[in-house]
Formats: sequence, structure tokens, C-alpha cells
Amino acid sequence: MKVALEELEQLARRAILSFGYPEEEAALILDVLMYSQLRGGNQGIIKLTGGGIPKASSGGSISIDKETQASALLNGGNKNAMVVVNFAVDVAIRKAGEHGIGLVGVNHLNTSSGAIGYYARRIADAGRIGLVFAGTPPMVAMEGSYQPMLGTNPLAISMPSQDGPIVLDMATSAIAFFGVLEAKTSGRDLPPGCAYDADGQPTIDPSAALKGALKTFGGVKSSGLSFMIQLLTGPLVGASAVGIGDVSGNWAGHLVIAIAPGLFSGEESLRRDVSAVVERVKRAKRLPKIQEILVPGERGDRKVNTARQLSQVDVEENLFRELKEIARAA
Amino acid sequence: MKVALEELEQLARRAILSFGYPEEEAALILDVLMYSQLRGGNQGIIKLTGGGIPKASSGGSISIDKETQASALLNGGNKNAMVVVNFAVDVAIRKAGEHGIGLVGVNHLNTSSGAIGYYARRIADAGRIGLVFAGTPPMVAMEGSYQPMLGTNPLAISMPSQDGPIVLDMATSAIAFFGVLEAKTSGRDLPPGCAYDADGQPTIDPSAALKGALKTFGGVKSSGLSFMIQLLTGPLVGASAVGIGDVSGNWAGHLVIAIAPGLFSGEESLRRDVSAVVERVKRAKRLPKIQEILVPGERGDRKVNTARQLSQVDVEENLFRELKEIARAA
Repeated sequence: MKVALEELEQLARRAILSFGYPEEEAALILDVLMYSQLRGGNQGIIKLTGGGIPKASSGGSISIDKETQASALLNGGNKNAMVVVNFAVDVAIRKAGEHGIGLVGVNHLNTSSGAIGYYARRIADAGRIGLVFAGTPPMVAMEGSYQPMLGTNPLAISMPSQDGPIVLDMATSAIAFFGVLEAKTSGRDLPPGCAYDADGQPTIDPSAALKGALKTFGGVKSSGLSFMIQLLTGPLVGASAVGIGDVSGNWAGHLVIAIAPGLFSGEESLRRDVSAVVERVKRAKRLPKIQEILVPGERGDRKVNTARQLSQVDVEENLFRELKEIARAA
Repeated sequence: MKVALEELEQLARRAILSFGYPEEEAALILDVLMYSQLRGGNQGIIKLTGGGIPKASSGGSISIDKETQASALLNGGNKNAMVVVNFAVDVAIRKAGEHGIGLVGVNHLNTSSGAIGYYARRIADAGRIGLVFAGTPPMVAMEGSYQPMLGTNPLAISMPSQDGPIVLDMATSAIAFFGVLEAKTSGRDLPPGCAYDADGQPTIDPSAALKGALKTFGGVKSSGLSFMIQLLTGPLVGASAVGIGDVSGNWAGHLVIAIAPGLFSGEESLRRDVSAVVERVKRAKRLPKIQEILVPGERGDRKVNTARQLSQVDVEENLFRELKEIARAA
């Protein structure tokens, strides 16, 4: 259903505050959630329902465990991941400004950081190239297996252009975890080929998939990619992963990289050339029934523009009702 | 067919030298080619046949166009890509040793750099984490198109462990370009779903695919990933790409990243935890008919061990005959 943008934002803000977050953190969390909601993603306000975002942890704070000119290792103190990863992005952007590159590892996060395209986009908005990798608890099977061992392990890559950032944001699972939750909430089947049930049989039932495992998005290559992201966001940054530590105590980590284009081709030249590549690729010959070749992030950006123009946003009816109840109870 | 390892190496060395490369460069090129050949990859000695590796360029030299403590931009002077990217890896490893991170962009390469897992593995052999991205001339279509606009744009990620490096090396195309050449040479069909002919019809004929376009390996996500690798290895590092410059004059570029684990968890802890994750994942429940869960690079590493033990390596008969002729003519 269509909902007034302002109303949705007010309800969501009230819900976040009701979980005990201070104003400043609530504003960050709202911004991350609306990034996905406006793009039609599945990491939006669904996270406020069904206990998706837990109460604010009391007393935890972010500490810098190691630091060099170009790098930092952050301990998130089990604060909300969206708050901590935003801080990591600030550090990476600053270091890239001062030393050409900022490389920030993050461990001890609480809950999901949301759509990591949000963080990659912030880096590109600052005129830098962003690479963001995130681990999640195990719910995805390696190729050849049906037991959850991998996270949905998304990656995001961003690049400034003359017409705003180009942002790729993709889970390495065949479907995002919140996509499964969304399907379950709204009584829909999963697309075929995305999941196994607990016995290793292919399933399109979201409830069965939640007891079994998701697949990666594209066979053995995507399984390998997810595995390496697990290593980059677990062992490398001191977060837990399958085989090491207890995930619940150290929610899988993040690796955030910001690169200043001045190290290489320079910002002006980069923006010009990125836009030239985009422009050329979009003019490629199209397969039958294809209206347009879309570059990463383009579909989502259009939805944002439409939502802002109309001051309206799409929300699942069930979710909106649940959100209103949470906000009313606040 | 099985061939004595020593004989193949001698023939390949003679062939490389016959193209005018000095001894030192020939040794590097041979090492890169044998890395793939021993792993059963399609970036091995096939590159010496059919004009795969051109004559050594006369007089070109590698220059460092920009440099900071943690980064360098290299102009390859149109020297052989394997020689130049090996140099880039040396620089990245050294900078990661001195400053925790080495970030090296490379442009103006001549021909293909081979299996980029080779370079990522060198970085992990040095105890660092490696990320290597490579551009190639356009032969792959974006999702929704059948016109070549993307390169096969491989990526490699490597990580040290207690039992040797874990190395992911994957083209973002559904099949590697040299896989198509190999299928053509040996009269085999392509696997279904890998390519379009020039009219946008799906094809399994390698000759038709060479006139048409390859697909990426896993739908819209892999198309987006390939697109971003194109931006990282073209506009960012001053190499050409579709829409900017003429690829033949500035063979698409490379981005090489080496990260010292000391920035984060530390080398000993990283090796231990990577091995723990590998060990756990390999014990996951297996689907029917699956003998073993393999982690990235594992299958290839086994083939290398077998080849070394038996002093024998697999080679396509046609390729071996062609190689012998090139070496004899030298």
C-alpha cells in the first residue's frame, strides 16, 4: 500500500525511540532503514517489527582497539550495528581524505547494519570509492551442502560519477534473510532455487527455509565469494564466524574501505569516465522485452525520486499495521 | 593427455623466449602460465598458442606515475601484463609490510595477466590478505543485453591460513574467454546458458559466442559485480574501458590490494581462525552424491600436488602439439 512518506517516518522514529535509543542514534537508524524502504528493498521498516531491532544496549560504547594512519579496528561495544558502521564510515572517509585510504574493521556489533549500500553510498557521496563487506550469522549453505555455514554476507561497491553515486549492494545469498521474513509475513512463496529445507530438499516455503538453509545466488562462484567475505568479516576483523566463537556474542563483523580517487586517476577524471562508461553501457543492444539496461543502484534511485516527488512510499500492509501498533504503544 | 611436467615446462620456456622475452621475464611468464596449467585452469599454455602472447614490446618500461606511502599508480609501458602485475604485487606486498596496506593501480598493459589467483596467492604467501581485480576487453553482456560491453572481469581474494593460502579466483563471466577458445580448439560445445550469438540468441557454439557475447555467471548480481570491477579497473586506474578510450591501446587495468593482518586481528590469530572456519565448513552436511565440501582453490591445489608427485600434467593433445611446433621453430 501507499503511505505518506512523512507519516511513515514519524511512526518509524517513534518506534525506534521506544526501543530506548537516544535521539541522535534514532535519526541514524531511521536514515538507514528509510534508505532501503524507499528503494523497495527488504531491509527497511520490517526491521522494527517482530523484534528485529533489539532494545538499545545500556552503557556500551565504541572503542578504537588499533589504529594506524590508514586503518582502524573498532570494537562496537555491542551497540546497534547501524550506529557503529556509520561511525566506521566516518573514520574511513576521514582517513581517505588525509591519507588516500581508510580501512576500518568492525567487531562486536548488535543486530543487522541494514542495507550496506547505504554506507557505500555515503563514501561515494564524499567523492571516494567505497568497498563494504558484512558478515551475518550462518543461514546459507556452501555449494554442495544444505547446512547453514555462511552468512548472507553482502558486499557493496560504490563509485562517484557526474550524476551521483553508482552503488552495487548485493547479498551473496540467493535471497536476503529479510526477504525470507517478508515472504513469510505476507504469506508468499520464495522464488524457486533459493533454499533447502532441514532435510536438504529444495523448498519454496519460507518457514521451511528458515529451518533449513538458503543457497548462494550463483553456484560455486557465489559460494566461494560468500566464503571469502566470511573470512574478511570474521577472522580478519576479530568477529566470530562459524567455527570460531559464538556468533550471538560478537555479531559478525564488517570491513569498510574508502579510497580517494586522487591516488589514481583523480576525482574529476574518475567522475567523467565513470559517467562515460555508464552512458555507453546503457546504449547497448537489448534482449527482447527489455526496456532499458540498468546499472547498479539505478532502479532503487528512481524509486527514491518517485517517492520524494509524490511524498509517498510503498509499504506492506501488515508491516504498516504492526509499525503503527508499536508506535502507539510507545 | 598426460605429459612429463619437466618436458612441458621446457617447451613452454622455449616458446616464450622465442617471442623475444628476456630470461627473467620468461621465467615469470612461465610461472604464471604453469600456475593455471597445473590447476586444470584454462589460462595455461593455451596462451602461448594461436598468438595468445604477443612478441615482447621493444623498449617499454614500467613507470610509477603517482605514489604515496600506501599506494602506487603504475604505467605498464605496454609490457607483458604478467610481468607488470607481478611488479605491482611486489610493490603492494612491500607497502603492506611498511604501512599495513598496499594499493596499486595498473594501466597500459599488453595482453592478459593470466589467472589472477596467481597474484592473490603470492600476496597470501607473504602473509597478507590479497584483493585483485582485473579488467579485460569487452566480450560479456550486461544483464538484459546481448552486446559485449563488459570484460570477463575476474576478481581474486586470498587469505593466509595454517595450511597454506585460501585463494578464490573467479571470472565474473559464465565462462572464461580462454575457456571459449579451448572449447573451440578441441571441438567441444559450451555449457548451455553461457553465451549469446551476434543476434542475441542463446548459443553453445564457441565460434558463434566469439561473434556474440558471453553472459555473466549469476544473473543481475553478477552483472552488477562485473560492472563495478570494470569501473575499478578502468576509470579508477586510468585504463580504458567501453565508453572511454581505445582498449587496444591501453589494455584494461588492474587494481591490487594487499592488507597486513597486523592492522586487525594479527597474523597468527588470522591463520588460526581461517583454518578453524575452513575445518568447520568442510564438515557441513552434504547433499546426495557430494563427496566433499571444497573451499576456494582447494580443488586446484590438489591437482598441483598430484602433478608434482607424479611429475606429470594434463594437457589438451592439440595444444601440446602446437606448443611443440612453436618450440621447435624457435
